[in-house]
Amino acid sequence: MLLNGIKETQEIIQSARCEGKTIGLVPTMGALHEGHISLVRRAREECDFIVVSIFVNPTQFGPSEDFNKYPRPLVDDAEKCCYAGVDIIFAPPAYEMYPDGFDCWVEVKGPLTETLEGASRPGHYKGVTTVCCKLFNIAQPDFAYFGLKDYQQLKVIQKMVDDLNMPLRIVPVETVREPDGLAMSSRNAYLSPTQRESAIILSKALIQAQEAFDRGESDPNTVKDIAVNFIKAEPLASIDYVAIVDAETLQPINRIDAPAVVLLAVRVGSTRLIDNILLSKIT
Amino acid sequence: MLLNGIKETQEIIQSARCEGKTIGLVPTMGALHEGHISLVRRAREECDFIVVSIFVNPTQFGPSEDFNKYPRPLVDDAEKCCYAGVDIIFAPPAYEMYPDGFDCWVEVKGPLTETLEGASRPGHYKGVTTVCCKLFNIAQPDFAYFGLKDYQQLKVIQKMVDDLNMPLRIVPVETVREPDGLAMSSRNAYLSPTQRESAIILSKALIQAQEAFDRGESDPNTVKDIAVNFIKAEPLASIDYVAIVDAETLQPINRIDAPAVVLLAVRVGSTRLIDNILLSKIT
Repeated sequence: MLLNGIKETQEIIQSARCEGKTIGLVPTMGALHEGHISLVRRAREECDFIVVSIFVNPTQFGPSEDFNKYPRPLVDDAEKCCYAGVDIIFAPPAYEMYPDGFDCWVEVKGPLTETLEGASRPGHYKGVTTVCCKLFNIAQPDFAYFGLKDYQQLKVIQKMVDDLNMPLRIVPVETVREPDGLAMSSRNAYLSPTQRESAIILSKALIQAQEAFDRGESDPNTVKDIAVNFIKAEPLASIDYVAIVDAETLQPINRIDAPAVVLLAVRVGSTRLIDNILLSKIT
Repeated sequence: MLLNGIKETQEIIQSARCEGKTIGLVPTMGALHEGHISLVRRAREECDFIVVSIFVNPTQFGPSEDFNKYPRPLVDDAEKCCYAGVDIIFAPPAYEMYPDGFDCWVEVKGPLTETLEGASRPGHYKGVTTVCCKLFNIAQPDFAYFGLKDYQQLKVIQKMVDDLNMPLRIVPVETVREPDGLAMSSRNAYLSPTQRESAIILSKALIQAQEAFDRGESDPNTVKDIAVNFIKAEPLASIDYVAIVDAETLQPINRIDAPAVVLLAVRVGSTRLIDNILLSKIT
């Protein structure tokens, strides 16, 4: 069932809750791919009633970003949701989520939102946390599902949920990749065939980093340089950032001796892609 | 039952909810007086399970404000709640609400928080909305009760609830007054006997404004001057602000032709007191 209104969506979810069903929410911006479907699949394993929200959230895009050209294939998306066993698609128009005079914001401050994506995309996470807070209040899910591809986003949302005592559990789900390793992303659709070939540099660089770490390299700068130099060899790619940071705090580390994550943002042509890999000692 | 922990509080309220009980929350900073008890009484009329939170919220006090000296008579408060038929008192310590590293904030921006109390007490409403968001998430009430004495606070919280789609209803409750007209407030305890006598100037000034309006005066400046001059005649009182504004937007008005509110903040000695009265045409 495709719903546009907040009130009707709340009512239908409320009915399901009254029947004793657990609610799973999969927040998306649409242009659904196998990554999103894996979130739905995980939700189906754990919940009785699955809500997918499709909303290209204007407040998380910067003025020079791709809000207008972001793909919105709603009919295809609805079909994919239907096949995947989604109970409700909540696809509100912007004025439903941000009516005239809207001016209340939820913001995680501090190091988690100041670095990496937060530094490259000012205001981005404020938009993300605000819309997620709204979606959580509308759907009141028991569980909400987020992909590990947007690793920093996941940590920021988890921080919001913890700090504000939101009554739901955030479930991280593994990144789904194309056969050649490229992380699934709605923005991959922007890539020309040549760019698409170059884009595998992101996941390949991460594997290079992982392999260096597995060989015993524990200096984050050395591991980072390996990834950076690998990407620099690809002429269509330009690095926004490559960072190796603590997997929980996202703060810089001097040695990789606790779980760490390699995060990168790379432009291929004009398309900005992100990816990451967790490094942890095999013990 | 007096509870300090968030988790146990959530569990007990959750049990009540599972029994089909509706939950009413009365958020307070303690030092309970008849105003608070009237909120509890109203909650009992509408809800099956009543939660009173007692938390002197540090984030809503400015550095030079009265956080440290704010009264905390917890034993008396618990007794009053018991008599009033409260089911749970949630009285967390500060570190339970704001653990180390806490850094997520809910903020209503714009005119509603920029004027009056918002202007006089920078950061105050950010603290109020953040703690209310947390309390709402912890208690998940169907209804939350707030006194009209803190009129602007009520409007700010209502705005947060609307903008963030919080699944509860805010219930405004009439100000309770001492026999001589002074609005009940925990801060009245700061007043010396002489100051206590002078403090009736606030409600008396509001009645002067009301009477002028009832006589047909619709120029807000004229009505305001009446209140201001009245307060100025009291040597122990010094005005922080007197304002007549639109009752919904709290914005300045040129004529009192829609519901308006007279809001004032006055220091009596070093104690800052607020009060207000709604002006509306008797039709």
